[in-house]
This record gives sequence, structure tokens and C-alpha cells, in this order.
Amino acid sequence: MENVLVSGMRPTGKLHIGHIFGTLNNWVKYQEKYKCYFIIVDWHALTTNYENTKEIPQYVLEVLTDYIAFGLDYNKSVIYLQSMVEEVAVLHLLLSMITPLSWLERVPSFKDQIQQLGKEIATYGFLGYPVLMTADILSFNAKYVPVGQDQLPHLELAREIVRRFNYLYGDTFVEPEPLLTESPYIPGFDGRKMSKSYNNAIFIDENEKETEEKVMKYITDPQKIYKNSPGRPQICNVFTLHKAFNNPEKEEIEQNCTQGKLGCVECKKRLAKLINSTLQPIREKRKSIDKSKLTDILLQGSLEAKKETRKILTKVKQKLNILGV
Amino acid sequence: MENVLVSGMRPTGKLHIGHIFGTLNNWVKYQEKYKCYFIIVDWHALTTNYENTKEIPQYVLEVLTDYIAFGLDYNKSVIYLQSMVEEVAVLHLLLSMITPLSWLERVPSFKDQIQQLGKEIATYGFLGYPVLMTADILSFNAKYVPVGQDQLPHLELAREIVRRFNYLYGDTFVEPEPLLTESPYIPGFDGRKMSKSYNNAIFIDENEKETEEKVMKYITDPQKIYKNSPGRPQICNVFTLHKAFNNPEKEEIEQNCTQGKLGCVECKKRLAKLINSTLQPIREKRKSIDKSKLTDILLQGSLEAKKETRKILTKVKQKLNILGV
Repeated sequence: MENVLVSGMRPTGKLHIGHIFGTLNNWVKYQEKYKCYFIIVDWHALTTNYENTKEIPQYVLEVLTDYIAFGLDYNKSVIYLQSMVEEVAVLHLLLSMITPLSWLERVPSFKDQIQQLGKEIATYGFLGYPVLMTADILSFNAKYVPVGQDQLPHLELAREIVRRFNYLYGDTFVEPEPLLTESPYIPGFDGRKMSKSYNNAIFIDENEKETEEKVMKYITDPQKIYKNSPGRPQICNVFTLHKAFNNPEKEEIEQNCTQGKLGCVECKKRLAKLINSTLQPIREKRKSIDKSKLTDILLQGSLEAKKETRKILTKVKQKLNILGV
Repeated sequence: MENVLVSGMRPTGKLHIGHIFGTLNNWVKYQEKYKCYFIIVDWHALTTNYENTKEIPQYVLEVLTDYIAFGLDYNKSVIYLQSMVEEVAVLHLLLSMITPLSWLERVPSFKDQIQQLGKEIATYGFLGYPVLMTADILSFNAKYVPVGQDQLPHLELAREIVRRFNYLYGDTFVEPEPLLTESPYIPGFDGRKMSKSYNNAIFIDENEKETEEKVMKYITDPQKIYKNSPGRPQICNVFTLHKAFNNPEKEEIEQNCTQGKLGCVECKKRLAKLINSTLQPIREKRKSIDKSKLTDILLQGSLEAKKETRKILTKVKQKLNILGV
């Protein structure tokens, strides 16, 4: 049996360089090793963005374009749109029947949100997000799910649901295992964590000039007032990015900055050049992608996902003595 | 536009005489007046019976047989199995995204259950029961939903979800109105409310002897010790049933009981006869139903329901800017 891996991303914005490390870079490696399902999870986007869905269709296609440009191969992996595989909604409904409410209320991300925004903000679908994620994973009886540290509790919940299902109805699913991925901290140009919602991101799909302008905005070491003041690379956003992009000159930059031999403007210019040259082939490929074929690519992937999910769903229905075909 | 009515029953047991008044009797009338969808809600059955699903398929067919025997006409109304119309699960998922958690936690039946059995007992699906019920109603943009007093809060929630949906995405659904149905209290032969789970029910599908034996078990007025003691019909289970079945002799029975002229054994025998003669044509029809056609009847109804629900779902997806087809 092939080892199946499932992962996904919400279509709530264009991809930025924060997605490269920890996500896209790993996905490209995984597709050589596992049978991969990469999902554009538009239903998940609704758990938080239900009031403003206007841009979702556009982002679905943007994200898909970024995937392909980055090297995900839709002939090798299954890339699909969650809402095209309605079987997942049925699986989600059935799993919801066996998932204790208390398990969901204990999920840290849920508790955080409630604490920050008040209970009134939460919807039923928001609370159930980990059940929907479990349905995504069980759709293919996946063995591996790449997760960051913050998503570990969601995966643990998925494993609990699997154990409960297997206990109630007999062995059916494997317990999905986390592939813990380290994502380096990527600062946005305002110093906060890079995020599409903070408007501080360097996008894969932008031109070199835009990237350079954004890089020039980064706040560096505030003690480095003059070009030849000594700087502290370890607290500098720009140096963090030099490291993330694995600049071969990073030791030299560190040394010269510390010794006051490298000014921030020069240092940023070198970073902008590095980012642009790294993104250049991806941006090139992005331009070459025939936009008119994108929906077809999603449909093809979704059909394949549908076929697999239907098999699982049929099995689940038999276990639960559901007549419906 | 036709006025659409939706109602349903859980396939968790055979139908009994408690279902006649308030439910089946009304349904037969409704189908002359409205476009009716009568659903066998097997997904709902899982909200409480997920640990024991073995008998559900059998009960689905039993309930359908009872429906037809009672006079529901599958050529006039749409009778279908919830789990055969998977579109409803998608609609449920989408509605879950806009339904505040706090609305569901305020539903009286949920609060009661939590108080009685503790929070640990509740599953996510159990909490979401009114959302699934709303999806059932909105599947056909139904205008009418027959409900008993205890279900009014669920329908009020459905109306709130409709208002919220229409507010967020523009006018889409009509607010479903309750058809408040009075159900007379039907005691079981142990004196508690008649219920399949109490094992105190007189089933539509049993023979005359069984019915008579059960009727003989009813507790009557405990002060009526001897055959000719005066009885109090107003507190007597047997007289309650004489009234429910609208016995043309009920005034005479009341008078004779009160005056000590009618013994309980005689009174019960008359009740058994009345119940059996009322059920006789239904039981006859029940026997004449070709069991091999039942699944086909459900499939036909479900296909029709699917067609309508798909139309609604497509509209909902457009409103929510969901690409998935």
C-alpha cells in the first residue's frame, strides 16, 4: 500500500515568501516520496471568511498557479478543490456524530479565539474546523499530514476521532501521523510576522521592483543609526531573511554588519536581489501557465479525489449501517 | 409557486399509535394541500444512536411501509431517505459556517440533555442537529414545517439562520413557518408516555391479539377497585385512548364508568376492539405492500429530492462564491 499524504491551504490570498519555507519547499519534496493530495480548502476558508467570500474564486486560481509555478506536478500529485469533492461534506457530517463536543472545545486555537474575540464570534463551523480537517485526511485514509507545531493539537484530535471510529465500528482508518515541519520565522516588512492579512507580505506573484521596494521598507537594528554603526544581525529582520533564503554570503554579511562595514541600504539591496533571483524561475513559470486550463486541472484532480473519497465513504456507510447510496 | 412542506421521522423504531395523532393523520391531510417532502431522517438518528446503528436499515423500511400503509402516496408526495441526498450534507456544512455557536447552545433540548446527562455526552453532531434540520427544510426552500410545541425552538433557529443567510448573501430563502400541530397525550401501557424506547407501545404492525393483550395491561383509575366502583375517566389512561381514537361511544363510556356501571375489563375490551378496527385497513394494506419495491420507492423519491436540492445548492454556492461544481 502506498503511503498517502494530505495537506492543504486556504484560498484567502496570494502566496508569499512566508509560504515557501515549511510548506511549499516540503511539498515539492513529499511528492517524490508519497502519494500526495494537495487541497485548496475553500470550505475551510469559510470558517473565518464567510462574510467576505468575493475574492475566494480568484484566490483559488492564484494559489493553484503558485503551486504549479513552484513545482507541484498535477500529473504526479492530486491537486484539487475541496468544494468539488462533496463526499467530504458527508464524511464530515458522519464524523461529527461521534466527536464529543468537549474535544473540540479543548482545542487551543478555539480557546484562544474565544478568549480574544468573545464567544459570540464563534460559529458552529468554526468550532468544527478540526472535524472537517479530519474528514479531509480520512478521505484518503492518509498516513501522513505535514503540520507545524501550532497545528499539532488538530492532528491529535484527528487521531482521537480515528481511534473512536475504529473502536465503535471496527478497524477502518490508520491513525494519521504528523510530519512535523519546522518553519523559520519570516518577518513582514512592517516587522510583524509575514501574513496576507497584515498587508506586509512579499508575494511570489509581484515584479522585482515591487519586491525591492518592500525590502527597502524593512526595519533593521534600531541601534544601527549610521551606515557604519555596528549592527546586530541576530535581531535584524533583513538578516533573518538572508538566513531563510540561505544566502551563501550570509557569514560575510553577518561579520561586516557587526563590524560596521555594511550599511543597511546595501544589505537590503543584496537581499532584494537574492529574493528576486530565487523567485525568478518561479515567476517565469507562473507567466507561462495557461490560465484557461486552471479550472480543468482542478476538475481533473477533484475527479480523482472524488473517486478515492467515494470508496472510503462507501466503506464508512457500510460500517454505520447507512442505506443511502 | 407551490407551497412546500417538509417533515420527517427518525428510523429508530417501528411506528406506534402515538404517531397517528399529531403526525401521520396530519401528513395525510397535508399532501392534498401542499407539495410535501416526507423524509426518513437516518442521519438525524445518528445524533443519538450512533453507537447502535444495526437496526436502522430495517427500521427505514418498516417506517416506509407504515407511511404507505397509512395513506402517504409516493406518487403525490416525495418520500425519501435523508442519506440518499448527499447534497443536504453540503448545505449543512455551508450553513454551519454562518450559525453562531451561541444560538445552538441556547436551544432548550440541548440544554436539557446537558443538564440531565452531563456535557461529556454531547457530540458535535448532536449540538448541530438544528442546523441539519434547517438544511432539510432549506433543501426545498420550504414554507411550512409541521412541529409540535417542543420543536418550536428548532424552527425558530431555522428562521434565524434564514434571516442571517438572506442578510449576508441577499434574499435567497423564505422563512419557514411552523404549522403548529396539537398532539394529544398518548399513554403507553405502563402509564408513561408511549415511546418505542420505553417498550410500552402499541405498534401499527402487530396483530389484534398482541394489541388486545397490551390494552389489557393499562393501569386505570386506582380507586376503581371493583368492577362496579365508580371510576374517574379524566385520570384514566384507557379513557384517554377512547377519546384519542374518537370513540363514538365515549360519552356513554364516561357516564357508565363514573356511575360504576362499566368495569375496566369490559372497557378495555371495547378499546382494544376500537384500536384494532381502526388499524385493520392499515394493517391489511401493510400486508399487501410488496417489500421488494421499498428500496426502489426510496430511490425514486431520493432522486427527485436530489434534483430539487441540487438546484438550491447551486444557488447557495453562487451566493457564497464557491467554485466547486
